[in-house]
Amino acid sequence: MTKWVYSFGNGKADGESKMKNLLGGKGANLAEMSNLGLPVPPGFTITTEVCTYYYANGQTYPADLQKQVDDAVVMVGKLMDAKLGDTQRPLLVSVRSGARVSMPGMMDTVLNLGLNPETTEGLVKLTGNARFVYDSYRRFIQMYSGVVLGLEHADFEEIIEAEKEAKGVELDTELDADDLKKIAGLFKDVVKKKLGKPFPDDVKEQLWGAIGAVFSSWQVPRAKTYRRLNKIPEDWGTAVNVQAMVFGNRGDTSATGVAFTRDPATGEKLLYGEFLINAQGEDVVAGIRTPQAISKIVRERQGAKKPSMEEAMPSMFKELKGIGDKLEAHFCEMQDVEFTIQEGKLYMLQCRTGKRTAKAALKVAVDMVSEKLIDRNTAITRVDPAALDQLLHPTLDPNAPKEKIAEGLAASPGAAVGEVTFTADEAEKRAAEGHAVILVRTETSPEDIHGMHAAKGILTARGGMTSHAAVVARGMGRPCVAGAGALRIDPDAGTMTAGAVTVKRGDVITIDGTAGKVFKGRVPMRQPEMTDDFVTLMAWADEVRKLRVYTNADTPTDAKTARGFGAEGIGLCRTEHMFFDAERIIAVRQMILAEDRGEREKALAKLLPMQRSDFEGIFKEMSGLPVIIRLLDPPLHEFLPQKEEEFASVAAAAGVSVAKLKSKSVGLHEMNPMLGHRGCRLGVTYPEITEMQARAILEAALNMQDKGVDVHVEIMIPLVAFKTELDTLKDRIEAVAADIKKERGKLPHYKIGTMIELPRAALRAGEIAETAEFFSFGTNDLTQTTLGMSRDDAGAILAEYLTKGVITRDPFVTIDRDGVGELIKIATQRGRKTRPDITIGICGEHGGDPESILLCHESGLDYVSCSPFRVPVARLAAAQAALKAVERDV
Amino acid sequence: MTKWVYSFGNGKADGESKMKNLLGGKGANLAEMSNLGLPVPPGFTITTEVCTYYYANGQTYPADLQKQVDDAVVMVGKLMDAKLGDTQRPLLVSVRSGARVSMPGMMDTVLNLGLNPETTEGLVKLTGNARFVYDSYRRFIQMYSGVVLGLEHADFEEIIEAEKEAKGVELDTELDADDLKKIAGLFKDVVKKKLGKPFPDDVKEQLWGAIGAVFSSWQVPRAKTYRRLNKIPEDWGTAVNVQAMVFGNRGDTSATGVAFTRDPATGEKLLYGEFLINAQGEDVVAGIRTPQAISKIVRERQGAKKPSMEEAMPSMFKELKGIGDKLEAHFCEMQDVEFTIQEGKLYMLQCRTGKRTAKAALKVAVDMVSEKLIDRNTAITRVDPAALDQLLHPTLDPNAPKEKIAEGLAASPGAAVGEVTFTADEAEKRAAEGHAVILVRTETSPEDIHGMHAAKGILTARGGMTSHAAVVARGMGRPCVAGAGALRIDPDAGTMTAGAVTVKRGDVITIDGTAGKVFKGRVPMRQPEMTDDFVTLMAWADEVRKLRVYTNADTPTDAKTARGFGAEGIGLCRTEHMFFDAERIIAVRQMILAEDRGEREKALAKLLPMQRSDFEGIFKEMSGLPVIIRLLDPPLHEFLPQKEEEFASVAAAAGVSVAKLKSKSVGLHEMNPMLGHRGCRLGVTYPEITEMQARAILEAALNMQDKGVDVHVEIMIPLVAFKTELDTLKDRIEAVAADIKKERGKLPHYKIGTMIELPRAALRAGEIAETAEFFSFGTNDLTQTTLGMSRDDAGAILAEYLTKGVITRDPFVTIDRDGVGELIKIATQRGRKTRPDITIGICGEHGGDPESILLCHESGLDYVSCSPFRVPVARLAAAQAALKAVERDV
Repeated sequence: MTKWVYSFGNGKADGESKMKNLLGGKGANLAEMSNLGLPVPPGFTITTEVCTYYYANGQTYPADLQKQVDDAVVMVGKLMDAKLGDTQRPLLVSVRSGARVSMPGMMDTVLNLGLNPETTEGLVKLTGNARFVYDSYRRFIQMYSGVVLGLEHADFEEIIEAEKEAKGVELDTELDADDLKKIAGLFKDVVKKKLGKPFPDDVKEQLWGAIGAVFSSWQVPRAKTYRRLNKIPEDWGTAVNVQAMVFGNRGDTSATGVAFTRDPATGEKLLYGEFLINAQGEDVVAGIRTPQAISKIVRERQGAKKPSMEEAMPSMFKELKGIGDKLEAHFCEMQDVEFTIQEGKLYMLQCRTGKRTAKAALKVAVDMVSEKLIDRNTAITRVDPAALDQLLHPTLDPNAPKEKIAEGLAASPGAAVGEVTFTADEAEKRAAEGHAVILVRTETSPEDIHGMHAAKGILTARGGMTSHAAVVARGMGRPCVAGAGALRIDPDAGTMTAGAVTVKRGDVITIDGTAGKVFKGRVPMRQPEMTDDFVTLMAWADEVRKLRVYTNADTPTDAKTARGFGAEGIGLCRTEHMFFDAERIIAVRQMILAEDRGEREKALAKLLPMQRSDFEGIFKEMSGLPVIIRLLDPPLHEFLPQKEEEFASVAAAAGVSVAKLKSKSVGLHEMNPMLGHRGCRLGVTYPEITEMQARAILEAALNMQDKGVDVHVEIMIPLVAFKTELDTLKDRIEAVAADIKKERGKLPHYKIGTMIELPRAALRAGEIAETAEFFSFGTNDLTQTTLGMSRDDAGAILAEYLTKGVITRDPFVTIDRDGVGELIKIATQRGRKTRPDITIGICGEHGGDPESILLCHESGLDYVSCSPFRVPVARLAAAQAALKAVERDV
Repeated sequence: MTKWVYSFGNGKADGESKMKNLLGGKGANLAEMSNLGLPVPPGFTITTEVCTYYYANGQTYPADLQKQVDDAVVMVGKLMDAKLGDTQRPLLVSVRSGARVSMPGMMDTVLNLGLNPETTEGLVKLTGNARFVYDSYRRFIQMYSGVVLGLEHADFEEIIEAEKEAKGVELDTELDADDLKKIAGLFKDVVKKKLGKPFPDDVKEQLWGAIGAVFSSWQVPRAKTYRRLNKIPEDWGTAVNVQAMVFGNRGDTSATGVAFTRDPATGEKLLYGEFLINAQGEDVVAGIRTPQAISKIVRERQGAKKPSMEEAMPSMFKELKGIGDKLEAHFCEMQDVEFTIQEGKLYMLQCRTGKRTAKAALKVAVDMVSEKLIDRNTAITRVDPAALDQLLHPTLDPNAPKEKIAEGLAASPGAAVGEVTFTADEAEKRAAEGHAVILVRTETSPEDIHGMHAAKGILTARGGMTSHAAVVARGMGRPCVAGAGALRIDPDAGTMTAGAVTVKRGDVITIDGTAGKVFKGRVPMRQPEMTDDFVTLMAWADEVRKLRVYTNADTPTDAKTARGFGAEGIGLCRTEHMFFDAERIIAVRQMILAEDRGEREKALAKLLPMQRSDFEGIFKEMSGLPVIIRLLDPPLHEFLPQKEEEFASVAAAAGVSVAKLKSKSVGLHEMNPMLGHRGCRLGVTYPEITEMQARAILEAALNMQDKGVDVHVEIMIPLVAFKTELDTLKDRIEAVAADIKKERGKLPHYKIGTMIELPRAALRAGEIAETAEFFSFGTNDLTQTTLGMSRDDAGAILAEYLTKGVITRDPFVTIDRDGVGELIKIATQRGRKTRPDITIGICGEHGGDPESILLCHESGLDYVSCSPFRVPVARLAAAQAALKAVERDV
């Protein structure tokens, strides 16, 4: 005989917390608490297997289920000294769903089941509290009618409102027992009218109705959608929990409350929570009475008058504290518990792992190691790496009033306040005058870099998580809200409009790049703090991780910041950002506008010393660590002016006619620049650009070596699709190296490698590794090409896809495991087969994303590279990946 | 002892034609002819293994080579009754390179080797022809100095010019024996001066010098580049052929000539060629004397006076004809032979497969089957499918004078003449007035369709082989030259300029889409003809091919044309082209500009009957055959106006304000439209578009079925990256189908499938096949994304890559076998694993490319789909692919 029903209560249980698949999360934890001897109201769980049977057999139950339920109900009754449907000592129960994972959309709870006209009378006699009983009864009818019978909540609220109006009162609490009894009657009339049959007074019918409703709710559309979005299998099913009711509203020795075993905001070890005397859970939600603190010290800190539970009910507090300690010792985790005290007896209704802030998570993890509750590796897994961002950036004061004016993507974390500016020049000017500014653009381009640097934060109306604004902002550590689609930005008028709100140039706004929100005016902020706990945990993480963590840095400042955060090298130094400096851009444009190789080389000769000095600065900061420098990548038209009004001044500065500039600009125009003349294609076409960059890199390395700096330079060739492209550029670099060797009599050691950022390169990695000494996955471009989706244009599409459940994760935030991930694995295998000691890493935006880091670890990569402020996140995520023994099958 | 030297002559040979790897192509064929008992001047071949040895051993020869060469030279001398270096009867030889495949850049030929002051004197005595001997001597010195000693040709030409000037003559032939003797002396002085050592008079030294030069030329840069481009292994090496000289300039019983065994232009079975009495091969090239025809009938047709060889040397003609027949019977192939008659004796110097036009290839192949020389399968392999295009399109008269003004890509075959027009409207208007027009655009967009249709041909300044202009032109069968980069087009001024030439609106130009050339004025044309041979060969091809051949057709007219060419279905019916019709585009724009779903549905309702009637027409033409209709693919902004001046009229027509139109246009703008909001993404966002199209398709199918048409409709969903996208659209289509079933009481049978055109879709083909009933590879987009290269922007890059040898084939013309090809194989395997009976084809532009068709066959696809005019090409290529037993290893 299959066991369909698992009982708990009275210090024992049929199940345990490991049986979540069979009993659901709630049922398994109730059983566990019961096994621990904690005072759990008795009850039983109908297993998820019944749910599976139910759907496999035309929504019917196993033959022997009824008997098992009947027996369990009797047992619960015995423990409670009561009986379901008994007119003297009626047993009341709650019925709740409970899947393996918490799932919105499913039937939640029916309370007070077991009441009917007869048991109500009995209960009045038993408790002497008619108001309590009739209030419970009308609540039961209302709840049951809603979730089990499928009637509208509003039909019942109308009746209550009418009754209050008739009586001339405003609050439900002003209704007395008779009113409530009358209301219960009216409720039952509604049910009969709507359904054509009476509300069930038979308590067995009530119970089976509620059980059936839980199983049926497994297949309601909202639950199905949620499962599809979260890839929860249909056949997991839900369990049903039936549990004896206990009441916190039976007088001054009764109470109800919730508590955390540690402060969820700070991690401090104390009972943190709220409770209400003579109340039910619902009363806390209703907000009519102010809940009181659990611990005395918390009450004192809050300056509250009403006594804490520790003061008002010292013995109950002590018992609760003991239970909290026991649960923590048992689960080795901070707990979030619900409890009810019925006439001086404490009952535990739920326990689960407590949610906490990043700061608290760090402290709890480190403290628990000191307390020997957990080991260091467990501590590492207890902190969400993504949450570390909270600690490294300013955050908005959660309690401050805010007027939100727009929402966009949380493109770069942190909060910033400043005056609105609409152009990069304006931002730079105002910032130079000492003002904090926010740069607001429809979208940014490489020409805006100086303005982005000058600004405290960046806001754009267009673009996704890997748009130019987002990528550059993260690199610089500037908060950024990108793709705030509702914004209409008019730089000429000096306004930005979002719905009815118009903000003018110079007005102050606040942006929250962690949440993707924009607020009017100045919102107070909290500054970040790097605690000792942070340092401790990161040190533990560094010991276990296998992946090295590099950084994407283009300047000595970025390099220094990243090294401070623990970066072990530069995985991506982009050389093009260096080209946008005001004095350089002229030479860059002269190079682009050159008629022939000779003219081009003249312009490049001006750039050479500047690039060389850039690299010298970076080598100095990164002494002893590898620095991977990527050759020029973007299409040349990115360096030419885009707007009509700029042509004249640019032409004059570059010393050419406007007509020529325009003609060149038209000639360089591309339909799809992302797939155009860029990356190594530039070096094939204009080898002199590659030669200049190679010379700048190698000379800088020699110069710094001469000054005692330990230089480890690697030259990275972007956008390779064919091995021959790499060969062509490598030949150029080696020719330059040979020249330098002749001129200086020596050469720095250097490596030449490539980015793997096109599907073809991933597939041909075997032959590409014949030439390349290292691979770096450019997962931004690899995602764009593998998915055929432009990161600049995909914002709206991806948002809609996420909403509609077409995808579950933004592939520009987390590597698309099934598609891009397979290409990463293929390329790694094929590359290693050709060259077993090849170094392989990733330098896309995904390098700072924990889930992507897990994929990199599983794929056997050597390092991840991310923006400086993500380095700690990556260090922790890499450690967690190393600890994750089990292969995931997402 | 290794055999390094293979002799031939006197009706026998050590080698044979199968030994091309060892003897090179030339040496093997000389041996074969000798074995056949044909009169080949005796000689020997030094094997390619010597070349390999030479490079493996520091450019030295095997120890026993010298003796083998010496012996072979003696044997040649014996057969010629002469001896190398003999002062009485000197043997003269030619030395030629001969690799497995013909290879430019390598040393070609040294003639007359063996001459020095002494042998020259002997030869004068022997022949009594001093002028002949000294002319041979000075030619030898000049040739040897150039190719063996590495001196400049100009140094020697100077001397001849000076001598002619001194003598007051203009032609080389006016120089007499003494002049030539003097020149030979001056030549030797130059050599001594330039090299510091005398020209070698020792004939052995001459021979080994020439042999060494051949082997060295294997590694000259031009040969290396050629090998890299054509993937010829370095270690193949070259052979060296040493052969006794014979002379066609020894009087009126001597002659030299070339002949084809059939007319290479028509395929007619007759000896076709030219010869000159008392002449050397060089004289034909010099063009001083007009060569005479070989056959009498050819002479008569040409209306030439000078007698043919058949008339002038009847016995020689008869012998040559006999040899031609013997060679054809032996090789079962049309031959191209070189011969020399020395004093009444015929010598065969070379035979090889004769090149021919497409028309001749067809006739020769079909005739040879009748003649039982070859079987049908061999006949199929004898015609180059790509050359069939010549037969299906008008071609320029090759003999007509032409003034070329520009070059571009041969984007769509055929030739066209017409007046230059610069806009689609203008083209349509002039065409309606009865003028032939050429549409000239910087690049075309979908809005130009009506003008492209009205034009006889299309010329663009930008865009590659798969640009919009190229793709649409091929589909329509319009000749097109695309990406003529030198053109500057100014529609406002009404001019196009190429270098110094300016062409005005209304001027006549001729474009040759087969060659990618543009000519001024009207060039006479030849009209295509579909011969019986064509029909016969295609029928044979259809019997052996495994791939079905479908067509890409968007209109009933295209469908009819393609069916006439043998198409077995429509593999791609693009629905968007139907949207550009003048009366429809308004409704399309209203749909795009709609504020909500309701407005959008109203606009779509107007389009529904139009789309339905489109499909009805196509189903009717394709009765009994499958029709695969692709849902709307391009981004919506393609349907909005691009130019400032159009906004007002478009806004008025669509009934919205200009401001709204502009704002919508800005909102829809994309950085990389190729990777943007298109394909199935449109259907996810605007399900009502998918619904309208599904309804139009299914209703059209029902309507036609009611009229007795046999409809086989398949609905294809483009740009799928995720299975969930396909599922989402399939749900929509099935909902519409259910509605129609309710309305009409029946439904046509239909399939739903997808394009595989993104790398992710190829990788996830296994799960996508759970939903898709068929796959169609969209190799244009798959190439763009796999290589990260936009077809619209890649023209210049690819041209440079091809020139520099970075790639060897345009990946938009021939499928990139290593990258895209692997994805096709992966997707096919994974799709078939999930759904063994899935139909898989290809509908990109590559569907008409023979090499790509071979890949499709090898990958196990079911069909290829190409533009109507490529259908015969594809049928033949598919047959050849089926016959190609050996796997290629490119």
